[in-house]
Amino acid sequence: MSLIVQKYGGTSVGSIERIQAVAAKVKQTRDAGHRVVVVVSAMSGETDRLLGLAHGIQTRPSPRELDVLLATGEQVTIALMAMALEAIDCPARSYTGAQVRVRTDSAHNKARITNIDGGRVQADLDAGQVVVVAGFQGIDEHGNITTLGRGGSDTSAVAMAAALKADECQIYTDVDGVYTTDPRIEPKARRLPRITFEEMLEMASLGSKVLQIRAVEFAGKYRVPLRVLSSFAEGEGTLITFEEDDVEEAKIAGIAFAKDEAKLTILGVPDQPGVAHKILGPISDANIEVDMIVQNIAADAKTTDFTFTVHRNDYARALELLQATAQTLSAREVHGDERIVKVSLVGVGMRSHAGIASRMFEALAREGINIRMISTSEIKISVVIDEKYLELGVRALHDAFDLAHAG
Amino acid sequence: MSLIVQKYGGTSVGSIERIQAVAAKVKQTRDAGHRVVVVVSAMSGETDRLLGLAHGIQTRPSPRELDVLLATGEQVTIALMAMALEAIDCPARSYTGAQVRVRTDSAHNKARITNIDGGRVQADLDAGQVVVVAGFQGIDEHGNITTLGRGGSDTSAVAMAAALKADECQIYTDVDGVYTTDPRIEPKARRLPRITFEEMLEMASLGSKVLQIRAVEFAGKYRVPLRVLSSFAEGEGTLITFEEDDVEEAKIAGIAFAKDEAKLTILGVPDQPGVAHKILGPISDANIEVDMIVQNIAADAKTTDFTFTVHRNDYARALELLQATAQTLSAREVHGDERIVKVSLVGVGMRSHAGIASRMFEALAREGINIRMISTSEIKISVVIDEKYLELGVRALHDAFDLAHAG
Repeated sequence: MSLIVQKYGGTSVGSIERIQAVAAKVKQTRDAGHRVVVVVSAMSGETDRLLGLAHGIQTRPSPRELDVLLATGEQVTIALMAMALEAIDCPARSYTGAQVRVRTDSAHNKARITNIDGGRVQADLDAGQVVVVAGFQGIDEHGNITTLGRGGSDTSAVAMAAALKADECQIYTDVDGVYTTDPRIEPKARRLPRITFEEMLEMASLGSKVLQIRAVEFAGKYRVPLRVLSSFAEGEGTLITFEEDDVEEAKIAGIAFAKDEAKLTILGVPDQPGVAHKILGPISDANIEVDMIVQNIAADAKTTDFTFTVHRNDYARALELLQATAQTLSAREVHGDERIVKVSLVGVGMRSHAGIASRMFEALAREGINIRMISTSEIKISVVIDEKYLELGVRALHDAFDLAHAG
Repeated sequence: MSLIVQKYGGTSVGSIERIQAVAAKVKQTRDAGHRVVVVVSAMSGETDRLLGLAHGIQTRPSPRELDVLLATGEQVTIALMAMALEAIDCPARSYTGAQVRVRTDSAHNKARITNIDGGRVQADLDAGQVVVVAGFQGIDEHGNITTLGRGGSDTSAVAMAAALKADECQIYTDVDGVYTTDPRIEPKARRLPRITFEEMLEMASLGSKVLQIRAVEFAGKYRVPLRVLSSFAEGEGTLITFEEDDVEEAKIAGIAFAKDEAKLTILGVPDQPGVAHKILGPISDANIEVDMIVQNIAADAKTTDFTFTVHRNDYARALELLQATAQTLSAREVHGDERIVKVSLVGVGMRSHAGIASRMFEALAREGINIRMISTSEIKISVVIDEKYLELGVRALHDAFDLAHAG
């Protein structure tokens, strides 16, 4: 008999009918002999309704009070879910984050979980109950209600699984697993039965929206086996595993991409120690996040060219700041391009297999796609290309690495 | 500087605009130099909305889960109220019942407050905050969320006032105080500036809807000065006081009445010990509450006539039960009347003034109103009369005791 934590998001519990459907799924798991903890989000639309009320009073409401308000969203869902379970003769008890002592820091609206006391949940499980817990919320050391920020319910589920030493944490969502790439771009994209934790972390940070990155980090830290499944369809989903041997012999797990990137370049900067800090200092002071960074020595060997990417929303502001910096540093000129995307190949297989990068560049070159920037990590190669080549590039790489077929 | 607990019901906080109006009122009190605790109900309509969700799942949802669900109603209000106060530069903090340890028994949906730890609220007050507390809710000794049942917010406010040793507990409602009788029946009804606690208790139990009877009992037990005021109008309202000398020299405080009563009589019951129990036992076994009870020895002195009143909703069932009892006891017959009302004169002045009862009966006789039953207590005389005489009877008594004019 294993202990399973299941998490259902806002869409999965968006109506009475859907809550009843989830209850049936939960009961199925319990009837199969498992012990089940269910973590739920607010019903879809509810958080926005509550925000609407708050904004009727203040454009920027107090973060503490906003948390008191928003936490009611999941509290409604846990009660209804417990009722739906009891209605089909599945004994259940609901708990708020505060009731099961989901301890967080005091950063209201974006708190981080520091500790969960699983004792009460464990006692209920021992008594044969399904335990329904409100995701997204906790309490700080003073007993104030906190929330983890949007999407935080994934993290709640993983943290609960870690505290209970659950055998598996199942995240139910509107997709049926992690794919080799976005099926809307490459219809031949294939669901991965397994993916390593590190690969998933890269995929998440590269824009794959399947799992919240913080939840993946948390799972990694506490070694919680995670599985992504569909709320609406049957299937095994994708297991995020820590056993690399377990993963099929593919070199590449998938292709992630980030739209909405922009690229800035400062050319002919006199090369001197500390120049990178002088260029990026004002950018980070303006709270603009920088993603890729590439620095080259220019042909004359006395100046340097410096390129970096930011989110497209920050482009105009970053360009302005960079132009000011260029004057200060007597740089030759500043270029910008806000019509670029980042495409990344992710796979632990890169570690042991040479030649992945050249095969990637070759595949793109064959389609006449110019690579603007390159950045690599141990299990990832990212390239920046023109926005118009996004679909073509993703499909070319998917083909080149034969991702439509299992390793 | 006094400490005041103010309670605002669902209608008073029924919209963002009304919440803002209440916030302005609270700030006024604070600006006048008082320390203020605000106890609020769910926004009007919210409890019904939540019940609707629950009933979409189960016709009789689990009481425990229903409490988890309903408690969100006040939690929304406290957050919005605290925001509305902060928006007008009045520092405020909100708390759920659980957060300020409103301890109750475990009778879900109708729990009773056993204890409140005022420490946290006191600390915030000391720090210059207005404290906003969710009414209607608490936690039991196991940390389960409980609710006090509809109208329980009055009790929450009184209990909070008792725990904090507040100088006054102000209940804001949609009427501007306690009246000598219902102004819809007697337009000359007068607002009482003061009323004793005992009188208020009788008025409440006799159907005056101004205050929840449990709240009045609580106030009596802990000697909390209560004041009833209007949320929507200025005015001093009515102070419920423990000082009888304080109250104006009127003999009578007011006239209460209860519609929806029904009367049952069993005639010619052979008189023997335990007959009352034999008659009322089956009634109370069926969870029917009996109000007035009158027993007479019949003219033949060997049998007894027994009359009692119940709520009109319980009439049909009570009649059925009584007919069965009549057979068992070989009683002569059973009569019933479901078109009667109870009218009561209430006043501590009765204790020291003789002749009140006869004046009451005389006033009713003068209008040709037949009295069907009489029952008295130390500070109350109740009569049962035909329903059709309700308005006439109330007005006749109001005149007879000159209630339109202060004692």
